[in-house]
Amino acid sequence: MKKNVAVIGVGAVGVEILRILKQRKFPIGNLKVFARSSRIIEVDGDQYQVQAISEENFDGVDIALFAGTEGEKGASVLYAHKFIEKGAVVIDNGNDFRLKEDVPLVVPEVNRSQIAKHKGLISNPNCTTIQAVVALGPIHQNFGLNSFILTSFQATSGAGKQAAKSLWEEFLSLVNQNKNNDFDNLDLFIKEKPVAFSNQIAFNAIAQIGGIGEDGFTSEEVKVVNESHKILGDDSIRVSATCVRVPVFTSHSESIYFITKKSATLEDVEKALKEAEGLVYLKDGLCFPLESQGKDDVYVARLRKDPFVENAFWLWCVADNLRKGAALNAVQIAEELL
Amino acid sequence: MKKNVAVIGVGAVGVEILRILKQRKFPIGNLKVFARSSRIIEVDGDQYQVQAISEENFDGVDIALFAGTEGEKGASVLYAHKFIEKGAVVIDNGNDFRLKEDVPLVVPEVNRSQIAKHKGLISNPNCTTIQAVVALGPIHQNFGLNSFILTSFQATSGAGKQAAKSLWEEFLSLVNQNKNNDFDNLDLFIKEKPVAFSNQIAFNAIAQIGGIGEDGFTSEEVKVVNESHKILGDDSIRVSATCVRVPVFTSHSESIYFITKKSATLEDVEKALKEAEGLVYLKDGLCFPLESQGKDDVYVARLRKDPFVENAFWLWCVADNLRKGAALNAVQIAEELL
Repeated sequence: MKKNVAVIGVGAVGVEILRILKQRKFPIGNLKVFARSSRIIEVDGDQYQVQAISEENFDGVDIALFAGTEGEKGASVLYAHKFIEKGAVVIDNGNDFRLKEDVPLVVPEVNRSQIAKHKGLISNPNCTTIQAVVALGPIHQNFGLNSFILTSFQATSGAGKQAAKSLWEEFLSLVNQNKNNDFDNLDLFIKEKPVAFSNQIAFNAIAQIGGIGEDGFTSEEVKVVNESHKILGDDSIRVSATCVRVPVFTSHSESIYFITKKSATLEDVEKALKEAEGLVYLKDGLCFPLESQGKDDVYVARLRKDPFVENAFWLWCVADNLRKGAALNAVQIAEELL
Repeated sequence: MKKNVAVIGVGAVGVEILRILKQRKFPIGNLKVFARSSRIIEVDGDQYQVQAISEENFDGVDIALFAGTEGEKGASVLYAHKFIEKGAVVIDNGNDFRLKEDVPLVVPEVNRSQIAKHKGLISNPNCTTIQAVVALGPIHQNFGLNSFILTSFQATSGAGKQAAKSLWEEFLSLVNQNKNNDFDNLDLFIKEKPVAFSNQIAFNAIAQIGGIGEDGFTSEEVKVVNESHKILGDDSIRVSATCVRVPVFTSHSESIYFITKKSATLEDVEKALKEAEGLVYLKDGLCFPLESQGKDDVYVARLRKDPFVENAFWLWCVADNLRKGAALNAVQIAEELL
């Protein structure tokens, strides 16, 4: 039952896919790793030969995992159909096909039944959406969601490995330019132009991820709305989001206020969360992005009822944006294909 | 018209009060600075003699500014009434008296008329509330607020100077323990027990500020509800909050979703914000906590209309938590007393 697998892209998400395929002992026959240029990379001590992407090497692949980074047009636009023509099923982490009618958009815990409907291509949702629907899916299923209002605290690695690295380099610059360590007179602005984001992200927060559309919402915020509707199978849910970049390397956090259609007590919602797949519900504890890095589950804490509004609740939700938010979810889809 | 002024407390807020009194040329006759122990401190090149607090030195003070830090019981509980007995008006930054019926809770831009009703003591609201009501006050006045849902991104200095300093020290530790600068294998957990917060705050987010009550809300979140009701003079507004600490030194950011009672277009709300006092409305630009440090105004950006819900909007609001969120607001109240 071994499958021949191709991984396309070896940025933050591609590396995480290679790591997870191994960790989960995915039954790989032949593995091909493609990127723009050929090289050898090392992941957790294993070396991988990366080949420059070229159609003539697409033969014999059963599952092609495109590790397209958020934001830039994915390699899948150019190459996905070539893989499909040659008999592979493509799982695409990029944004290009997610809303296409004949492309299932899948978070296995929430809508794995959609996978069977694929016509060669299955899309992996945006990281911000994935963890939200893992938490809200069971609530929607049990009580129906009337609305949810989401504010995100997004890690720099969501913009790629170079972006995460530039956060570290900003800190090194700040420590360097404050060698006298005079806390009362810290010089907190790096001298160089920020590399990865519009502004310095060290000791800052940037309330814009992606371009801003005519209605004032960013592309990231629009993704949360459209992808949640598609995955939850209900576009009557009133979804709205503000997405913010914070100085964290990995794991997004989300503050979510939601209102159910059916009457629900706190205990009802707790029960749904406790029974949910792929989710750890912390009744009393708290979850943190730093501590969630490298973990597979979506963590939910601080569930509470708005005392002034019927059926309205808050929750705080944290997940590794590179794993459940991207690579792990893609590999889980691949596992469903086995 | 000079006034004799006392400043009680020389932590982050107390130092900022001294700075602002000078910057705004507050007409000071005699200035007394009190703290637990006597010492000399320097603020912007000026030296201040700090005396150990003692009732016998409370005579002849016209205005006493208590720089109580959030969280701990303020010195005002012990000493405010002593100052009042001796004829001073007390402006208290602490939490102890804010909700008392005969104590005005004032943000001058929003409810300066309340100041005249004082009986010796005026309370300064919590930092998180102040910037929210500066932004929402003019909207409530023009259209009535049905509700607002707030998620905060709060600076470490809100927990005092030592807390802010410990953020810096966490970074120094991290740089030190990663001297080889191997980004792929960064050791991101500091070895020491975190000093200021329950968990490491560097490269993290902590979704709890203050203790958690029976209903699951933190004291910080409850403050936003109760104080907003009192300042806006309307406890029918459905207010709910999630308050989160982020690795920022100074300036809180807030993501606010609000629904007006009266019908309002985007242009209507923009007009109210443009005309608002103490507020800079950025129609196209963005505001950032790092860049707002040291500024007096509350900055509002990313105003947009939820296309799916009538009269529902988002805004992003940033202000210096030590200045407008504490010291500046207190000095502004003092100026109104002149």
